[in-house]
Amino acid sequence: MSVPPWLEEGRAWSERALERFVPRADEPPGRLHEAMRYALFGGGKRLRPALLRLLCLELGGDEEDAVRPGAAIELVHTYSLVHDDLPAMDDDELRRGRPTVHVAFDEATAILVGDALLTLAFECLTGDGAPRGLEHARVLAAAAGSRGMVGGQVLDLGLEADGAARLDALEDMHARKTAALFGAACEMGAIAAGRDAETRGRCAEFGRALGLLFQAVDDLLDVTGDARTLGKTPGKDAALERATLVRALGLAGAKTRARELAERAQERAAALSLRRETPVHELVEFVLSRQA
Amino acid sequence: MSVPPWLEEGRAWSERALERFVPRADEPPGRLHEAMRYALFGGGKRLRPALLRLLCLELGGDEEDAVRPGAAIELVHTYSLVHDDLPAMDDDELRRGRPTVHVAFDEATAILVGDALLTLAFECLTGDGAPRGLEHARVLAAAAGSRGMVGGQVLDLGLEADGAARLDALEDMHARKTAALFGAACEMGAIAAGRDAETRGRCAEFGRALGLLFQAVDDLLDVTGDARTLGKTPGKDAALERATLVRALGLAGAKTRARELAERAQERAAALSLRRETPVHELVEFVLSRQA
Repeated sequence: MSVPPWLEEGRAWSERALERFVPRADEPPGRLHEAMRYALFGGGKRLRPALLRLLCLELGGDEEDAVRPGAAIELVHTYSLVHDDLPAMDDDELRRGRPTVHVAFDEATAILVGDALLTLAFECLTGDGAPRGLEHARVLAAAAGSRGMVGGQVLDLGLEADGAARLDALEDMHARKTAALFGAACEMGAIAAGRDAETRGRCAEFGRALGLLFQAVDDLLDVTGDARTLGKTPGKDAALERATLVRALGLAGAKTRARELAERAQERAAALSLRRETPVHELVEFVLSRQA
Repeated sequence: MSVPPWLEEGRAWSERALERFVPRADEPPGRLHEAMRYALFGGGKRLRPALLRLLCLELGGDEEDAVRPGAAIELVHTYSLVHDDLPAMDDDELRRGRPTVHVAFDEATAILVGDALLTLAFECLTGDGAPRGLEHARVLAAAAGSRGMVGGQVLDLGLEADGAARLDALEDMHARKTAALFGAACEMGAIAAGRDAETRGRCAEFGRALGLLFQAVDDLLDVTGDARTLGKTPGKDAALERATLVRALGLAGAKTRARELAERAQERAAALSLRRETPVHELVEFVLSRQA
């Protein structure tokens, strides 16, 4: 399926949002800022900030109030990719169709680029005049930390003795590694729209359901995708003997599970009482059927 | 000189502050939390949070309001040590007298421990009921990011073409790498005490002066210190051909420069209008004459 118009719109909006907060390459230290920009401006889909903006708008909020949280969530996502690609982690040389940061620059720079992007996310959220910065930062930090995204990464690398041998352990890993940040994106959309705790909670649930679906499709694409479309190396999970949905359930079983997760996400979407339901439903279909 | 009583008091207080916010080792993912605790609870001097608390108290603030910012600044400092010690960075095997995190665990875990500690700093500052969390987070993020600590690290690794060949370039690197976080510690002490922008600015200036002194003494100790007292490997700077004050000015010149920096810090301290001046003056003397 083609990219929905609001996603294309959200992508362009995200580029502008990031431009507002990322230092220029000629500001010292220039090599660091150049490498940060290389990591950031490499043609990402900007799914998380686009999602945050979409929910903010459909909940009646103002696009401008989504700019800082939108930039911040993409900064956190990008830092996690830069660190995940490092030799000591996934050891990946290709990302979004280009050499990864440690290949294009060097390993020390890649470590520091990740550190700087993560820090910049919180600088961006708490800058002068940032509305609801404290709430945004609280939600983002909880989702990105040791109980969320970083914790999921540790589980994914098989660094925990128990690993992800069973389906429930696997989906717990996915919940932390991927779904926590999707949940934060949606909750931050509701915060940007000034909505109450109940709506925020329902948005977070929808986001987590969408994140589980996104990760299931990621596991499938690692088997069925090709490098050119993916912009990264497929077959890595099998090569690294990672626990994936395909490994746990087989290809057919993983496809069935992805459809189940898409249905659950659609149910959660229906519970959001949005102005218009169509874009969010389209979004779920897009995440289910994406090829990259 | 012996450790001043208020620093010993601040150290014990910092341990309790950290305990309140760092997950227990039995909370999943257990290996990650165990490694985070290994990195944190290894006998650090806790100079930055002790300094933050001291300024908060001497400016008439409440110790309790310094707990979250104190823990946060030590979390950021510790994450930077864990990443600096990595093989791709300083490649250090000894820290605070024990194997570094990537030696005691593994490299991937050390990268993720650093990421998690940095994220936890902002979770800690923005948690429910955190007073002045937005201001603390703003100051800390600016000091720790690409224009501050991380930028200084890039310069220190000689990753920038210009490097730190001249004394002014060297002290610009020190200002970012070390002094920015000392400045943040002192400014956060003033924020915790509820003081105005002028006092905050003067505290930040004092902190930056103290940080330059601290780094000058660090450069000296790398030449004159021994591994047992230092708890880390001396002679690293020379081995790595790093730009240091000793390399730029010779040993005698570097000692003279350290005394000049101590005098400047004392002047800045005198401008703070504290309840009592003695502890802060003692602190400057302690940083000048420290052996570890």
